[in-house]
Amino acid sequence: MKVKLVADILDANSQLARQNRQMLSEKGILTLNLMGSPGAGKTTLLEQTIDVIGKAFKIAIIEGDIFTTRDADRISQKGVQVVQINTGGACHLDAGITGRALQKLELDAVDLLIIENVGNLVCPAEFDLGEDVKVMVASIAEGDDKPAKYPLMYSESSAVIMNKVDLLPYTDFDMGRFISDTRKLNPDVRFFPVSAVTGEGLENWSNWLKELIKNKVRQRYARGTKGA
Amino acid sequence: MKVKLVADILDANSQLARQNRQMLSEKGILTLNLMGSPGAGKTTLLEQTIDVIGKAFKIAIIEGDIFTTRDADRISQKGVQVVQINTGGACHLDAGITGRALQKLELDAVDLLIIENVGNLVCPAEFDLGEDVKVMVASIAEGDDKPAKYPLMYSESSAVIMNKVDLLPYTDFDMGRFISDTRKLNPDVRFFPVSAVTGEGLENWSNWLKELIKNKVRQRYARGTKGA
Repeated sequence: MKVKLVADILDANSQLARQNRQMLSEKGILTLNLMGSPGAGKTTLLEQTIDVIGKAFKIAIIEGDIFTTRDADRISQKGVQVVQINTGGACHLDAGITGRALQKLELDAVDLLIIENVGNLVCPAEFDLGEDVKVMVASIAEGDDKPAKYPLMYSESSAVIMNKVDLLPYTDFDMGRFISDTRKLNPDVRFFPVSAVTGEGLENWSNWLKELIKNKVRQRYARGTKGA
Repeated sequence: MKVKLVADILDANSQLARQNRQMLSEKGILTLNLMGSPGAGKTTLLEQTIDVIGKAFKIAIIEGDIFTTRDADRISQKGVQVVQINTGGACHLDAGITGRALQKLELDAVDLLIIENVGNLVCPAEFDLGEDVKVMVASIAEGDDKPAKYPLMYSESSAVIMNKVDLLPYTDFDMGRFISDTRKLNPDVRFFPVSAVTGEGLENWSNWLKELIKNKVRQRYARGTKGA
């Protein structure tokens, strides 16, 4: 019964995720589901990413948190559209709550939507929100053994941002072990070692993101659904 | 329906937790539910705690992980009894799975049982396992805004171990803000700033733990249920 119930919940979620994906795709918006542990540095990375590419592309943000609007308050200071979701206790976003947040955004001219999920290395990876790509932020300070212990999120992510590389000299983090453990789960994954504090590595990450946005924009014009 | 279902699950869990608590209490074992984010340093803290108090007291460990036996392998090298639970995807331990792990331990002479929960700042706080006290490990590297954003675990914990204080000079962590945000949720909480790597602060934490164990042992002898 419990397994059946979980299957039903995931089925219902998949249907709503398809609706979100179709709507976002029709508008030609590249959508990222940004996941990671509490304190991995997701919001700081978002702030830096907005600084680097926010002039060239129009960005909207959905902030998922259990409580508080702290992250949305931080992001709104960057002058981009942001909607805060409070799950009120739930440990992940789902497609339904994401769909309701989408209705609160003015999406017509948006190029990039980033959905910052609840800080949790487990549950968010199970729920499709309708995104194009899942990206995770892993902090050097969490240790190099996390891919093997939390494999689903590492398997599902197209890119792993290894944040807080400025702390590398003060930890025993083994970069080789982290990368090889992740590749075992996910051979095609991209790695971006960055420090959202010092700015190190942000260019590589931003360039990758820009390419994805440009591909999406090309699809949009090829289809003629926008700007027509 | 969903709310009703969650209530049923928590009710069933509470019943099983009562059974665990009664059994552990009859044996006079102090039981800790050790929680925290992935990479907060729970296992390293456990290793250090065993080193400091393992000669004076008999310790048993239950290791909760989604996958792998890495943590149990590390702990077993310390020469204490350890049972690994793999949740196979679930993001927290519950009283049922804990009860089955308890059956695999030889508990008769044990003074202290530590249950290391799955690395997750959200869900574990909702599930009573039958422990005497909940203790959480928070890493300095996670940032000082976590109590407000993940309030349940901070409210439920009798003690917050602020781990990785050796990283304080390299972060903008505001100790005052962290402590005052936590006290708002939980006025009686104890704080233990430690570095499980350098050993800093471990004595205060261990002394607190020893007092709890001794109180439990006194209750045991007062009742005459053990050693009689």
